[in-house]
Amino acid sequence: MTPTIDLNADLGEGFGRWSLGDDEGLLSVITSANVACGFHAGDPTIMRRVCALAVAGGVAIGAQVGYPDLVGFGRRHIEMDQAELRDAVLYQLGALEAMAQAAGGSVAYLKPHGALYHAVSRDDRQALGVLEALRTFRPDMPVLGLPGSRFLTLAEQAGVATVGEAFADRGYQQDGSLVARSAAGALVTDQGVVVERSVRFARDRVVRSVDGVDVEVEAASICVHGDTPGAVELAQAVRRGLEAAGLAVAPFVR
Amino acid sequence: MTPTIDLNADLGEGFGRWSLGDDEGLLSVITSANVACGFHAGDPTIMRRVCALAVAGGVAIGAQVGYPDLVGFGRRHIEMDQAELRDAVLYQLGALEAMAQAAGGSVAYLKPHGALYHAVSRDDRQALGVLEALRTFRPDMPVLGLPGSRFLTLAEQAGVATVGEAFADRGYQQDGSLVARSAAGALVTDQGVVVERSVRFARDRVVRSVDGVDVEVEAASICVHGDTPGAVELAQAVRRGLEAAGLAVAPFVR
Amino acid sequence: MTPTIDLNADLGEGFGRWSLGDDEGLLSVITSANVACGFHAGDPTIMRRVCALAVAGGVAIGAQVGYPDLVGFGRRHIEMDQAELRDAVLYQLGALEAMAQAAGGSVAYLKPHGALYHAVSRDDRQALGVLEALRTFRPDMPVLGLPGSRFLTLAEQAGVATVGEAFADRGYQQDGSLVARSAAGALVTDQGVVVERSVRFARDRVVRSVDGVDVEVEAASICVHGDTPGAVELAQAVRRGLEAAGLAVAPFVR
Amino acid sequence: MTPTIDLNADLGEGFGRWSLGDDEGLLSVITSANVACGFHAGDPTIMRRVCALAVAGGVAIGAQVGYPDLVGFGRRHIEMDQAELRDAVLYQLGALEAMAQAAGGSVAYLKPHGALYHAVSRDDRQALGVLEALRTFRPDMPVLGLPGSRFLTLAEQAGVATVGEAFADRGYQQDGSLVARSAAGALVTDQGVVVERSVRFARDRVVRSVDGVDVEVEAASICVHGDTPGAVELAQAVRRGLEAAGLAVAPFVR
Repeated sequence: MTPTIDLNADLGEGFGRWSLGDDEGLLSVITSANVACGFHAGDPTIMRRVCALAVAGGVAIGAQVGYPDLVGFGRRHIEMDQAELRDAVLYQLGALEAMAQAAGGSVAYLKPHGALYHAVSRDDRQALGVLEALRTFRPDMPVLGLPGSRFLTLAEQAGVATVGEAFADRGYQQDGSLVARSAAGALVTDQGVVVERSVRFARDRVVRSVDGVDVEVEAASICVHGDTPGAVELAQAVRRGLEAAGLAVAPFVR
Repeated sequence: MTPTIDLNADLGEGFGRWSLGDDEGLLSVITSANVACGFHAGDPTIMRRVCALAVAGGVAIGAQVGYPDLVGFGRRHIEMDQAELRDAVLYQLGALEAMAQAAGGSVAYLKPHGALYHAVSRDDRQALGVLEALRTFRPDMPVLGLPGSRFLTLAEQAGVATVGEAFADRGYQQDGSLVARSAAGALVTDQGVVVERSVRFARDRVVRSVDGVDVEVEAASICVHGDTPGAVELAQAVRRGLEAAGLAVAPFVR
Repeated sequence: MTPTIDLNADLGEGFGRWSLGDDEGLLSVITSANVACGFHAGDPTIMRRVCALAVAGGVAIGAQVGYPDLVGFGRRHIEMDQAELRDAVLYQLGALEAMAQAAGGSVAYLKPHGALYHAVSRDDRQALGVLEALRTFRPDMPVLGLPGSRFLTLAEQAGVATVGEAFADRGYQQDGSLVARSAAGALVTDQGVVVERSVRFARDRVVRSVDGVDVEVEAASICVHGDTPGAVELAQAVRRGLEAAGLAVAPFVR
Repeated sequence: MTPTIDLNADLGEGFGRWSLGDDEGLLSVITSANVACGFHAGDPTIMRRVCALAVAGGVAIGAQVGYPDLVGFGRRHIEMDQAELRDAVLYQLGALEAMAQAAGGSVAYLKPHGALYHAVSRDDRQALGVLEALRTFRPDMPVLGLPGSRFLTLAEQAGVATVGEAFADRGYQQDGSLVARSAAGALVTDQGVVVERSVRFARDRVVRSVDGVDVEVEAASICVHGDTPGAVELAQAVRRGLEAAGLAVAPFVR
């Protein structure tokens, strides 16, 4: 059987008059779209349009849930308590579901955004808040997140399906964690290297760390970015590389 | 068969630290709760709590959709185009549905709020925007609105079920429209008169106008208010009066 | 004495993560910057940065006040009453003044944005709301607006200094009003023609209408746009053309 | 010379349709009003009205600056970086200054609100962000805060005047810090005791701790609360008690 890998990216991150990234371009490459839900980015009209494009292109729709912080783009930690975070996430899930259904689709997974992504990776209360929302909304829906994080661990304990993701353009440490953005080796910029790392993630579940050691990464999806110059071209190169290596590129949800 | 009448009121109109009206008190009296959806009032936690109380009390949950205008409480007309209004309403419907389902219920009807209520009553494009959202969300869901308004007329033409509402504490003109708030006779403040008018609405589908003429009002629901002093007591008196007159007080949706 | 003309443009219209237009590019061309104040666009950090750049470049800072409508970019009419509009405008003026003073400057004029620009041009109550705010804030500060509009007329009656603006890339009708965007001749796209019209505005206070008639336009400023491709180049061409024709390009406020 | 004490309270904490606390009632008792600036509470119209009442009553106007978090009422920590916090505070200062000047007054001091109050008390970067804004806005303006906090210490180091405040209805520990709200002895509810403690704060700069030890508190202002039932009555009792003890109740700023 052909090994399969998913490509996910953040989409629908504009707001009103402001656009961000190349949604159409990415949708021709990726297999899972993390769609912003209006709290840190995205608005009803953008959400609806992206959902329609995703359904038309056979791309899975994920809920890119975040903190209620438009001006901060959800990148600033907010000390929400577990219940209010749960309700805020449930609200976003419901809103996106209405847009997905309007397009003939459905929300297929959840991926926290920005500061919430970091918070759920290490803070049990915030992770549990998000997971409670998901279980209330649809208990059989998977979460997409950082392999080895508290979020995925707590999800498994709660019986929620988990999917790990890898970052082909980020440096890894020996323990499988990412190199901090401020440190040397944080970013991999050479396109050929990014493609090669993607293939290793997908085929071998392995990445070469900044120390030169091979590290296992339990990832069924590779995250590509859309808001930098040349992002779509890089994503296309990754996809071509994966297919050339004999891998099937397909959504992790069916 | 016993004639039946519904009592509806606006609920969940607080926001964060701010509360408004007596949600618990009203829920013990009314049969349909118009729950604010977060755009002009309401937040995820309030929405969820009100939905839970409504389901527990056998009260129908309606989507009190409005303009995105917290500081204006949805009372200022916003010249949204039809498509963006449609998407904004669909977003609110989805968000409230998630909260209703979390409580074991479901959104049962839609009632526009404030300036949107007035806009859809006379502006076809805004009415059609709301109706498109509803039909996309759930085509068999009724709308609650002003009898004789463009909103109800266009809903019927689109095959959407309609429910008219009456205002027992508002003066009516001979043509069935409400007396403007600034004009004499706009408000009925005597409790006995409000109760008596409620009974006539419910039993006879008739109200005495400010000119002393009986006017037909096609209403299956009476709107009671919750944000004024004594509001719950007045609503209780109306309910007791209706029941004393042999009328069944029950949701218009089952 | 050399005839003088001002060039104004909208600046600081990003919000948080989202940018819009080329602020730096425009600041090297224009003489008056209409800086968004956070209600329909702009945030504290963007406002502060643009003010610093404007002061450094000798560009006058104007308050681009608007409706509280981020998702609509201030382009949707909101039926605010006169007192709440007055207070909303005063709030924006004060916030921008703090940023201008932090940069060693001061707010020098006011120009309403988007739907508010259109509203004050024809609705006395909205115009008066804006003018009351300005007079409370600084009675000797001029307004920039549409020649012949209710806004400028009411400003003059109130003793507020007025500056009319012209649009070199828009078609004019015989009565001096702009051709509606949906109609033929609404936009002038040829760079040479835009430059030539700018010179006629500045030197002769005249524009050729779509009907081929010369129309007087009482404008001491020409509005250039910044959010379209090639906008900065067009603005540069206009400035070069004006200077080549012997006109001084300078702020209308000193 | 008669010893003097200030009474401060949070005012203008409504938003749009929602009110909170008894602004008018408190203004007849207190001498310094911490006016919310629209980011976590307050809107332009409320700010303007409260400023007018404060000026009319001879009550000093302070800027109650907070995080941009309406739904959380500024009570949730937001991890803003120093520069964006500085700009957000400067924006609020400017907006409130416009309202104060419209009333014939001026912003006389700054007091952070809610989670920002706690953050600046212990986090140098957030404290410095707020202090930079203040120094840019008006370097000779004092801050009101927790005695012994990093905020006041850093303010002094920066040459900013500081005023400590005491809480007559809160329990103190031996080290002068407040008893956590969740712990026994956190709140003092007996009116007579609250009055007596207020007098000791004002006259002796001392409070009896929960362990029964007298602790020095360097406070020139006592904070009274306005959003609980009986709040105004309690504040009135405190003021009467202070005056009966021969203390002058007056603003700390002149």
